[in-house]
Amino acid sequence: MTIAELELPTTTAATPSTSTTMKALVYHGPGERAWEEKPRPAIQEPSDAIVRITTSTICGTDLHILKGDLPVVPDGRILGHEGIGIVEEVGAGVSEFHVGDKVIISCVTACLKCDFCKRGMYSHCRKGGWILGYAIDGTQAEYVRIPQADGSLYHFPAGADEEAMVMLSDILPTGFECGVLNGQVKPGDTVAIVGAGPVGLAILLTAQFYSPAAIIMIDLDDKRLAVAQQLGATNLINSGDGQAAQRELTEGAGVDVAIEAVGIPATFDICQTIVAAGGHIANVGVHGKPVELHLEKLWDRNISITTRLVDTVTTPMLLKVVRSGKLQPSQLVTHRFAMNDIMKAYDTFGNAAKEGALKVILTNSDSLVR
Amino acid sequence: MTIAELELPTTTAATPSTSTTMKALVYHGPGERAWEEKPRPAIQEPSDAIVRITTSTICGTDLHILKGDLPVVPDGRILGHEGIGIVEEVGAGVSEFHVGDKVIISCVTACLKCDFCKRGMYSHCRKGGWILGYAIDGTQAEYVRIPQADGSLYHFPAGADEEAMVMLSDILPTGFECGVLNGQVKPGDTVAIVGAGPVGLAILLTAQFYSPAAIIMIDLDDKRLAVAQQLGATNLINSGDGQAAQRELTEGAGVDVAIEAVGIPATFDICQTIVAAGGHIANVGVHGKPVELHLEKLWDRNISITTRLVDTVTTPMLLKVVRSGKLQPSQLVTHRFAMNDIMKAYDTFGNAAKEGALKVILTNSDSLVR
Amino acid sequence: MTIAELELPTTTAATPSTSTTMKALVYHGPGERAWEEKPRPAIQEPSDAIVRITTSTICGTDLHILKGDLPVVPDGRILGHEGIGIVEEVGAGVSEFHVGDKVIISCVTACLKCDFCKRGMYSHCRKGGWILGYAIDGTQAEYVRIPQADGSLYHFPAGADEEAMVMLSDILPTGFECGVLNGQVKPGDTVAIVGAGPVGLAILLTAQFYSPAAIIMIDLDDKRLAVAQQLGATNLINSGDGQAAQRELTEGAGVDVAIEAVGIPATFDICQTIVAAGGHIANVGVHGKPVELHLEKLWDRNISITTRLVDTVTTPMLLKVVRSGKLQPSQLVTHRFAMNDIMKAYDTFGNAAKEGALKVILTNSDSLVR
Amino acid sequence: MTIAELELPTTTAATPSTSTTMKALVYHGPGERAWEEKPRPAIQEPSDAIVRITTSTICGTDLHILKGDLPVVPDGRILGHEGIGIVEEVGAGVSEFHVGDKVIISCVTACLKCDFCKRGMYSHCRKGGWILGYAIDGTQAEYVRIPQADGSLYHFPAGADEEAMVMLSDILPTGFECGVLNGQVKPGDTVAIVGAGPVGLAILLTAQFYSPAAIIMIDLDDKRLAVAQQLGATNLINSGDGQAAQRELTEGAGVDVAIEAVGIPATFDICQTIVAAGGHIANVGVHGKPVELHLEKLWDRNISITTRLVDTVTTPMLLKVVRSGKLQPSQLVTHRFAMNDIMKAYDTFGNAAKEGALKVILTNSDSLVR
Repeated sequence: MTIAELELPTTTAATPSTSTTMKALVYHGPGERAWEEKPRPAIQEPSDAIVRITTSTICGTDLHILKGDLPVVPDGRILGHEGIGIVEEVGAGVSEFHVGDKVIISCVTACLKCDFCKRGMYSHCRKGGWILGYAIDGTQAEYVRIPQADGSLYHFPAGADEEAMVMLSDILPTGFECGVLNGQVKPGDTVAIVGAGPVGLAILLTAQFYSPAAIIMIDLDDKRLAVAQQLGATNLINSGDGQAAQRELTEGAGVDVAIEAVGIPATFDICQTIVAAGGHIANVGVHGKPVELHLEKLWDRNISITTRLVDTVTTPMLLKVVRSGKLQPSQLVTHRFAMNDIMKAYDTFGNAAKEGALKVILTNSDSLVR
Repeated sequence: MTIAELELPTTTAATPSTSTTMKALVYHGPGERAWEEKPRPAIQEPSDAIVRITTSTICGTDLHILKGDLPVVPDGRILGHEGIGIVEEVGAGVSEFHVGDKVIISCVTACLKCDFCKRGMYSHCRKGGWILGYAIDGTQAEYVRIPQADGSLYHFPAGADEEAMVMLSDILPTGFECGVLNGQVKPGDTVAIVGAGPVGLAILLTAQFYSPAAIIMIDLDDKRLAVAQQLGATNLINSGDGQAAQRELTEGAGVDVAIEAVGIPATFDICQTIVAAGGHIANVGVHGKPVELHLEKLWDRNISITTRLVDTVTTPMLLKVVRSGKLQPSQLVTHRFAMNDIMKAYDTFGNAAKEGALKVILTNSDSLVR
Repeated sequence: MTIAELELPTTTAATPSTSTTMKALVYHGPGERAWEEKPRPAIQEPSDAIVRITTSTICGTDLHILKGDLPVVPDGRILGHEGIGIVEEVGAGVSEFHVGDKVIISCVTACLKCDFCKRGMYSHCRKGGWILGYAIDGTQAEYVRIPQADGSLYHFPAGADEEAMVMLSDILPTGFECGVLNGQVKPGDTVAIVGAGPVGLAILLTAQFYSPAAIIMIDLDDKRLAVAQQLGATNLINSGDGQAAQRELTEGAGVDVAIEAVGIPATFDICQTIVAAGGHIANVGVHGKPVELHLEKLWDRNISITTRLVDTVTTPMLLKVVRSGKLQPSQLVTHRFAMNDIMKAYDTFGNAAKEGALKVILTNSDSLVR
Repeated sequence: MTIAELELPTTTAATPSTSTTMKALVYHGPGERAWEEKPRPAIQEPSDAIVRITTSTICGTDLHILKGDLPVVPDGRILGHEGIGIVEEVGAGVSEFHVGDKVIISCVTACLKCDFCKRGMYSHCRKGGWILGYAIDGTQAEYVRIPQADGSLYHFPAGADEEAMVMLSDILPTGFECGVLNGQVKPGDTVAIVGAGPVGLAILLTAQFYSPAAIIMIDLDDKRLAVAQQLGATNLINSGDGQAAQRELTEGAGVDVAIEAVGIPATFDICQTIVAAGGHIANVGVHGKPVELHLEKLWDRNISITTRLVDTVTTPMLLKVVRSGKLQPSQLVTHRFAMNDIMKAYDTFGNAAKEGALKVILTNSDSLVR
């Protein structure tokens, strides 16, 4: 949709569904992105739905793609795997959603029918998994095609807050499933979270579902640590000197649960150093390199190490908890932009440390998308 | 006890309980061992028991100590952490065992009272753990002092077979807890066991408690693989060329459970290569070096990796299964020696590949120990 | 299909798909059943499949319906919820099955998309659950309509035995999920199964997945107890005098797991009498009356009591175990009939004690159904 | 200790340990109790400790004994199974506690060595279980003998509040283990607690460890319901008309967890009426009569029903949570008395409804017990 078109609002409004284009944030190779016109998506399979995006957000993974870290992503891909929207059209096989339904889009696409989906491993769905904004076009656009809609959308609760609910697309289930559940956080535990970015903070929020006695937040950025304290961290460690965490935490017994939320060898190493005998290391970060695992020290320590791509199987439960008011994920929102300003939003999110950015909210105004 | 002494059996027999010495297998620094006279152990703490050994055996860990791999073990240490025997004396605080009771000695000493013991982590008992034949004198002797006797001994079932029961000291709980339980073997699973030594075979036997659909045994030694087949392995892979396992197993979906029972980087690497998404790697081997963990490939594979020093908390259950006849651990016995011939037994066990040795049984004849 | 029609095979064969009728076993009110002509089922919803039945069987529940115990079942209902067949037609929303696929029909219909299905409780599927041969027409016919086909059918393994596989429709998942899993059978356990009918025997077979030390079979019928012994029961108790089980089993410590597989107060009472402290009572039987629960004796016994309508979520796993040869469910087959002789088959199954009947197999011959 | 003695404090103080008597609350048959002189307890077994009580409290079970509901309790028994105190003397087998240690006394005595203790079922310890103030003399006294001291005492955390900590003797582990753990409370759940007495409120407090979305408190007493609201209940139902709970809760889907904390058929019946398919009924109440279990309605509802005598295995964890400040059990204290006034304390606690009593604290003043 061009500015010229915007000058003719009555025409646009008069024939909303006849437009065949939309605006979208498009990846054009390492370091290159544009907010540009693209064809509006259409139903391709009976299980598809087309969703008009009302709210979206940017994820650290989007930055990885932009850097070129995931070379499989082709030039021309629309980015984004988080969003809230309105169902505009559904395929013949979609039974749970109807035109006009307001929905939460899951970052993971699930057919519900394959062996992995039946085991609750939607992340490895034979027809889905994480594909939005990666293997297929994503949600940082005016419209998106959602394959396997019945397994990949959730009904938006009446009266809920879009800013809170968009955190259910990815960040909350990721933090909860990969960090808290895999880490087996229990009442009374001592939990360390390495990395106080948006996902680390989502872990912090959802770890509190299980009433650990202490949650130690470890990061290099004092500002993020201060946010963590507001969100419930009981102890803060700036690991800038490379040894602080190890020093403070291994004089004692070590931690019951160490959660890696960065994705580099150094932070994984903190985890394997501070975990107590009988404890758990839950890896959440996306790693680009191998790490050195000190089995010569750990073989007799009775620990578990887990990895996980989020399955989003806990989304229904998280919805209940958010609805009950016990979890307020909109605390993670630091900036708000119109979707039209997404290029600026990326600038802000890309300088997160300087800007103090956590989650940036993107909103499609009605005039634009109708 | 020297040969000269043995020429005077009547004296020895006439005053059995007044003797203050015994024979024992003693470590004298790397590569040095002797079957020599040592003071007979005495009660030191109220929780101690003195056990007269009737049956013992040699473990791969004993060889590690002899090689000097565990430098913390001092010259003069009596080796051995497995055994069956008769209680000769108990301290004032021992309530579950009495003089004359026939007992199975657990390789792990458990006070039952500390925080780790209460959590079922006897391996990390504040007063015990693996100490026999390592931090204190062990069972390859005529007598042994067992600290924390109430938590470290088990009543020998009437009528049971000593050769079968001595496998409960270490090898069966080790294989079962560190391999099968930690690997979460389930009915219908595909399980791979890397290493067909005594512990690997104990894993093979106890994995069958859970009716996996396939158990793939991987080793370099065809003779051991043949034994594995007799004990229930459904598939055999000789990994001699370094790639066989990976090639055969990753064309398919990978295995649900990969169990490492060797303790070197190469075998751990096989495990991380062949494990399926959603699968489990259970480390059982004792490692001397770090391994490279390919988090850049595994971060999104939803796997678990576990380590464990055996806790022996499943010994009561294993006793029931052995008693029921569903598990016949004496299948692992390949050689038998009088305890007096333990030096030869070590020679045999130390050349396991050539000798076809798995477990070697050591028996104290009555004439000697009375 | 009438006899007159059968005299004109060429016509039938020439236009197989144009026939609009079929033969089916129809319920006509309490005590009344007929093998009669009915309209052939057609696709009604995009998620439907039409399956041509090749093998079916009769369940005790079918007898309950015939007795009038389930008054909600209307006159005219085709009975049967077990079967193997060939997919003849699929709706537009069916993605996992195609015309010509050989399939196992699950007794439970699962949409996979509702809240219950997502939790693995297919039994309470919002659009399914147990409906075949009960709320909608069933499988004792030449053709059946299967709603929610993607969640309710399973691919028949190439080369497998239909008689074995038809046990996966109901009896094996019922015994395994409601009895063995809910009863938490573990290696070394003592398990009692009250009721040695087909479901009780399916429990017996699948309990052995977990290597209990003892399985005690309790029934009034010595013939069935003899079958149980052949299938792996370690102890048999004829509870004819009403006290035998209690007497034999409560002198000891009681049983770890007591599984009720009959559905009357007397058998539930046996279970609550014989269960050990810390044990589990798994109810599998279909009950028509309340039972008296002795909470005044049980409140401090740390037991669990469970109920369950089979979810069939373990069918993929059971398929693997049957395929591996570790479970041979065709051992439960005692009689075989052509589907055309289903009236006789019901006579036999209805006199199970006298006839020594367990599962009776019904086969549609090709000439009839093509 | 008589009033005459109290007039001679210097003498008492000068020879504290020579006194051979103490004051205690003694049961003298149904309805009869007295605060009277009794011999001071002495070490009988090596595993015993003698504890000087500083704080105790009264439990509903004490009232049951006084009513004569537990006829096994003999005339002359000192009541009470909750308390804080100072170790005065230990047997030779006690290793974890020393004279002068401040301790929390567990209501359950655990040898830690028997089969039940090793399984974590201290409640059924072969040498212990619930015996204090029931099978042996209890804690409503100046001194108490604690058998199996190493398993039955916990170190009092430095600086902690005795009123809070005495709730760890019984009420908190009972509510948590029998109600919350057995009920499998999960984040997002709807939980109903039937009975807002002290144990019901302990369930309410500890259920919040797991962040349920809603906790519905059901009772006949509006005052107790008001307390429940202050302690975190999200919904209150006065079940006075016998149908309110059923009406309100079964129009919806029913509750995920229904916890019975009264011990009569009517309240159990509420639980079985309101539990959702797939839900859990956790019985906590002490029942004197059987209940009618509606298996004819529940057989296909996939529910669990559990019973449990508290094992107190979670006491170490509860200690951590109380220490972290996330649980403030002193909120349950409504009245405080000197131990000397225990007869009045019983009057108050025995009229709990009228007095608004929950937990009444009993304190031994130093002058009395020194």
